[in-house]
Amino acid sequence: MRLDIHVIAMAHPADMSGLEDRIASGEIAPDTIICILGKTEGNGNVNDFTRGYATLAFKHALGNALGLPPAEIGNRVALIMSGGTEGVMSPHCTVFCRIDDGARGQAGRPRLAAGISFTRDFAPEEIGRAAQIEATALAVRDAMADAGITRAQDVHFVQIKCPLLTAERVHDARKRGHDVATEDTYTSMAYSRGASALGVALALGEIVAPVDDRAVCRDAGLFSARASTSAGIELMRNEIMVLGNSDLWSGDLVIGHDVMDDAIDLAAIQRALRMVGIDPAAPSAHIAGQVVAILAKAEASRSGLVRGQRHIMWDDSDIHATRHARAAVAAVLAACVGKTHVYVSGGAEHQGPDGGGPVAVIARTG
Amino acid sequence: MRLDIHVIAMAHPADMSGLEDRIASGEIAPDTIICILGKTEGNGNVNDFTRGYATLAFKHALGNALGLPPAEIGNRVALIMSGGTEGVMSPHCTVFCRIDDGARGQAGRPRLAAGISFTRDFAPEEIGRAAQIEATALAVRDAMADAGITRAQDVHFVQIKCPLLTAERVHDARKRGHDVATEDTYTSMAYSRGASALGVALALGEIVAPVDDRAVCRDAGLFSARASTSAGIELMRNEIMVLGNSDLWSGDLVIGHDVMDDAIDLAAIQRALRMVGIDPAAPSAHIAGQVVAILAKAEASRSGLVRGQRHIMWDDSDIHATRHARAAVAAVLAACVGKTHVYVSGGAEHQGPDGGGPVAVIARTG
Amino acid sequence: MRLDIHVIAMAHPADMSGLEDRIASGEIAPDTIICILGKTEGNGNVNDFTRGYATLAFKHALGNALGLPPAEIGNRVALIMSGGTEGVMSPHCTVFCRIDDGARGQAGRPRLAAGISFTRDFAPEEIGRAAQIEATALAVRDAMADAGITRAQDVHFVQIKCPLLTAERVHDARKRGHDVATEDTYTSMAYSRGASALGVALALGEIVAPVDDRAVCRDAGLFSARASTSAGIELMRNEIMVLGNSDLWSGDLVIGHDVMDDAIDLAAIQRALRMVGIDPAAPSAHIAGQVVAILAKAEASRSGLVRGQRHIMWDDSDIHATRHARAAVAAVLAACVGKTHVYVSGGAEHQGPDGGGPVAVIARTG
Amino acid sequence: MRLDIHVIAMAHPADMSGLEDRIASGEIAPDTIICILGKTEGNGNVNDFTRGYATLAFKHALGNALGLPPAEIGNRVALIMSGGTEGVMSPHCTVFCRIDDGARGQAGRPRLAAGISFTRDFAPEEIGRAAQIEATALAVRDAMADAGITRAQDVHFVQIKCPLLTAERVHDARKRGHDVATEDTYTSMAYSRGASALGVALALGEIVAPVDDRAVCRDAGLFSARASTSAGIELMRNEIMVLGNSDLWSGDLVIGHDVMDDAIDLAAIQRALRMVGIDPAAPSAHIAGQVVAILAKAEASRSGLVRGQRHIMWDDSDIHATRHARAAVAAVLAACVGKTHVYVSGGAEHQGPDGGGPVAVIARTG
Repeated sequence: MRLDIHVIAMAHPADMSGLEDRIASGEIAPDTIICILGKTEGNGNVNDFTRGYATLAFKHALGNALGLPPAEIGNRVALIMSGGTEGVMSPHCTVFCRIDDGARGQAGRPRLAAGISFTRDFAPEEIGRAAQIEATALAVRDAMADAGITRAQDVHFVQIKCPLLTAERVHDARKRGHDVATEDTYTSMAYSRGASALGVALALGEIVAPVDDRAVCRDAGLFSARASTSAGIELMRNEIMVLGNSDLWSGDLVIGHDVMDDAIDLAAIQRALRMVGIDPAAPSAHIAGQVVAILAKAEASRSGLVRGQRHIMWDDSDIHATRHARAAVAAVLAACVGKTHVYVSGGAEHQGPDGGGPVAVIARTG
Repeated sequence: MRLDIHVIAMAHPADMSGLEDRIASGEIAPDTIICILGKTEGNGNVNDFTRGYATLAFKHALGNALGLPPAEIGNRVALIMSGGTEGVMSPHCTVFCRIDDGARGQAGRPRLAAGISFTRDFAPEEIGRAAQIEATALAVRDAMADAGITRAQDVHFVQIKCPLLTAERVHDARKRGHDVATEDTYTSMAYSRGASALGVALALGEIVAPVDDRAVCRDAGLFSARASTSAGIELMRNEIMVLGNSDLWSGDLVIGHDVMDDAIDLAAIQRALRMVGIDPAAPSAHIAGQVVAILAKAEASRSGLVRGQRHIMWDDSDIHATRHARAAVAAVLAACVGKTHVYVSGGAEHQGPDGGGPVAVIARTG
Repeated sequence: MRLDIHVIAMAHPADMSGLEDRIASGEIAPDTIICILGKTEGNGNVNDFTRGYATLAFKHALGNALGLPPAEIGNRVALIMSGGTEGVMSPHCTVFCRIDDGARGQAGRPRLAAGISFTRDFAPEEIGRAAQIEATALAVRDAMADAGITRAQDVHFVQIKCPLLTAERVHDARKRGHDVATEDTYTSMAYSRGASALGVALALGEIVAPVDDRAVCRDAGLFSARASTSAGIELMRNEIMVLGNSDLWSGDLVIGHDVMDDAIDLAAIQRALRMVGIDPAAPSAHIAGQVVAILAKAEASRSGLVRGQRHIMWDDSDIHATRHARAAVAAVLAACVGKTHVYVSGGAEHQGPDGGGPVAVIARTG
Repeated sequence: MRLDIHVIAMAHPADMSGLEDRIASGEIAPDTIICILGKTEGNGNVNDFTRGYATLAFKHALGNALGLPPAEIGNRVALIMSGGTEGVMSPHCTVFCRIDDGARGQAGRPRLAAGISFTRDFAPEEIGRAAQIEATALAVRDAMADAGITRAQDVHFVQIKCPLLTAERVHDARKRGHDVATEDTYTSMAYSRGASALGVALALGEIVAPVDDRAVCRDAGLFSARASTSAGIELMRNEIMVLGNSDLWSGDLVIGHDVMDDAIDLAAIQRALRMVGIDPAAPSAHIAGQVVAILAKAEASRSGLVRGQRHIMWDDSDIHATRHARAAVAAVLAACVGKTHVYVSGGAEHQGPDGGGPVAVIARTG
């Protein structure tokens, strides 16, 4: 069993040509796909419909390829679209294929492993609260089991797609007599991401006690060093993919991670590169050849400072803070790995320390 | 004679407290100030009034300090405000003071030198055309003379503030029977920056033949490796500061530069650091201590690609390409030097190759 | 034969529930649909993917309803999505159904009539130029024939969806040795809309001589009082629907139009209402009940003035002028008709005089 | 005693030429100015520096005219700048001059009257809470006394400029051990506007009981029909101007008001026009000649609906809801009065019903 990864450029959110070409050529067997992680070119915020657009296109493309109704695709493939490709970041998708080739992993030679799971649909009033945290923690453990990973320390990245509140969903909760975590639709994305990340932290033992509703988006001391959560309008449940190393898996890919302390923490990225055997001082083109994917979270620090100097990300009413932060972090990552097919998703509430976030690198071994 | 540099944080565009404190304490003698280079927190585009706001505030603050009418300040100090502090970039100003202390420079030990000059006011129809190029070339040579620099190779950075067209200025030209380089006010910023940069290239011998109107913003093969031009609504002339090394000057500062080939060209920044004696692999805090200022241009590549992969900067109708590019390049610079008081100005037309741009570092020696 | 119109609210760009409910209940027979005119909630500019998203969703929904492959829907139904629902404008679609019920119109009692047509795909270098103008003029005459309208004076609205340039399309033209009307992708929308409108003007005899490339977006004296053109990234041809009155048609709907001289021309809207038998001084709820659809173009005046006073729409680098103009005109229309399902599309180049545009009202007769 | 009003176009936020010309010509005596109400062309949100820029320019211009230090101007003139001139709204200022000409008003012929007052500076933690409500109510009564108005029913408009929270101010409160009404800087503008409006309602007897912190921005049933509040970064206190009619005043101006139920409530504007003797069906140019100023609040309805149909203002992460709403309401007003020097300020929390707001008209009598 091995995990194959295909990074495919997209000319627009519904551009299926790269995927369809690889399926046509036999390079990708569609029934092996367990997850597609997309970086689409919307604003990454409430009214980013590029995520839903890409999701719809993937459902139809995979439905065609598999001879299944589009509506069934969501039950077998985690389609996780993250909006926002600010600055140099290039729109693309990363296709994760689980190849059951009978090959066995070797003890002491752990290789990239993946598992997926879904929670139930949440009610609007559950988003950003304990109900979402707990359901997520259970689902993360399911995904670990699916990946054949038993130790939390072997998990290096947990990607989650989670829902947000719209004016209509708030209204719906109110009509049924419930309040919601926040009535600001943009802010609801932060609450949903934060609760989801706390679910990961709980599942991986990074925090221990149960978490109160009031800690969400307030107690920055609680965080996961491996969670990456992204909110979208197009779903009401959490969709989860766990990535780690396991010696049950074969192949030539490994994953490592580190935590960026702030948005310009070059040293953390270099440590993550070294963890998967790459010399960060090597020529840019060489590193670009070895790195298959780099995944990180970006966030404007709540302190209003980076290295003690003021940033304007929270006070800019024209461009949301998540967009500023993604542009910045993606450029630093791209400069380190020599390519712009980097995956940076915004809003790192409870994902790494304030203003920082996890960074994971998947690379070819030797 | 030496050039002192003070980098001062600004809490908002009219925040004069840092400057006034240094004047009050005697750290800055206001009559030594030859240029203030500001990075203000507007959008950096047509309707960025933070530049004019800061300029007005500086005129009043310096008028007070010098006992002069505010209107006269512009004749003795180049006030160059560049808008746009996207991502991690921190709003600040850099104050350049020429100290005539009688100290002589030492042959073979060139130190940071500066000179300033202004062109006449341009008519709207001259902006972005040969008239602006030629007047700028003459003024750059004036500024070199002012700095005591005779060889073009000793010039490492030429900062220019130049005008733009507004709907009213276009209308004015039309009423007088003239057409303009472009009627799109946003695009006019590119033309003005481009023509100004070509003026620098002509003055420094980077291009030789006279430049035709039609080459502006079209022939990307013509460029200066040392020009940094920035357009603003608050002036109609070009204001120029030349920075270089000269052994007529003393002090402990030196300047070096290199050219970034694209927005993620880490290697070029590292070469510029080495040129002023800094090891780019040193700990981040150490580099931050040695670097006094880092100045660069940012631009979205016209090819639509970075390292062969598509970027969306030109197709984004919500955020202008200059804002994307500044956020990206500033983050890479900040990650290299460990601080966010970096100066990145947008729109690098004829300033370095397509998608890249000059980067200059001012650092302490020994 | 009659034209039925269904105005359907949309909760998001891919919300097909309203259409599907009406098909399920028999209210709409899917094989009678000739055009769907959508107002989707994107930015209406280059990277507005809500248009493509809605188009994809309509193709699948109608494909399901008609038992046809989605790819064939575009050949039988004009799917014209216009992005941008700024201010009070409410996202919705207007479904036009041609009912061949054998009923004959009555001489002297003209009723609402419609016809559709498509041009061939354009090459990037043809967009915004004579080739697009001429192909459009021919297609408008085809659509009139399809509607059974012989006199130009009986045409009251011509809706066109036309293509735009992206960085990639510009690159493609260049590679083949062609220049394009403009390299600015946002500006290309204006050129495409303008050339399409000039095609309508030519077809309806509003202008007579052939139009030179250089007149497009320059000679504001050339315009159609009945064209409404809208650019989108999702197509390369022009798609056309002609609306008018004809006594070959029956039903209880009529259409009228007038031309707004500027964005606040209340009197023009009131004249259009009177033309279809509505008293503009009637109570708002009454007017809302009679008006089935109101369609208009919005544009920021190139003069920079409205009623002699400056507007900032062209100098705002945060919000594009088309967004400002749509928000303003839509609000005036909505205030006149007492509902927010109004259709206002931005960019009225050669559609009415500078800063104004056509407005058409479809209403129930007595 | 009479109130003179001068409406002056501004070419940019610091354009003092119109004011200075009128002072030079004797049309305006600078020592009679009690208030300048400006509509500046920023985004109207947190980082709108056009307000501070205009304020600084007015202080210097009036300082020059009056022979006073700029810092003293704020103590004698209420400088109330409201940002945001979306759509057709034209940047301008309205200068209110109290002329003590010895003329007495006539009983039974009330004329336009004005008074001003200021609160103390607020601490960040007081903004949006009871402390701000109560201090405002006291200050409104002071301003009424200053205007010679004793009956609440004779007050037709209360304009207030109030502070907002920035990341730094939040940080400051936290350091001193206080929480704030909201940590979201944009949202803080709503809280400050809401608390200020509740202060007006309390002063005018529109609400009676003291208001709890928790009602601010929550209990939409509590509102003033005459408050207009606007938040800005450049002050920490509330600045208040009361406008009404009083027979202690002479002159030829009167004021009336009504309440718009929603953003397209044409009928309310028409009632306000009739209240000051204007026939809303008169030709547009005639109305434009009679109306001296029209002032209104704009707000996106919290219900998410206008006339039962969905709007997207709250779900748009590219353009803030206040900008959408101002563009819409300003266009409706401008269409009614035939001019674009209309004053519409955004964010109508507790100013009129949800989604609506007060509208006041100042007109010449007979």
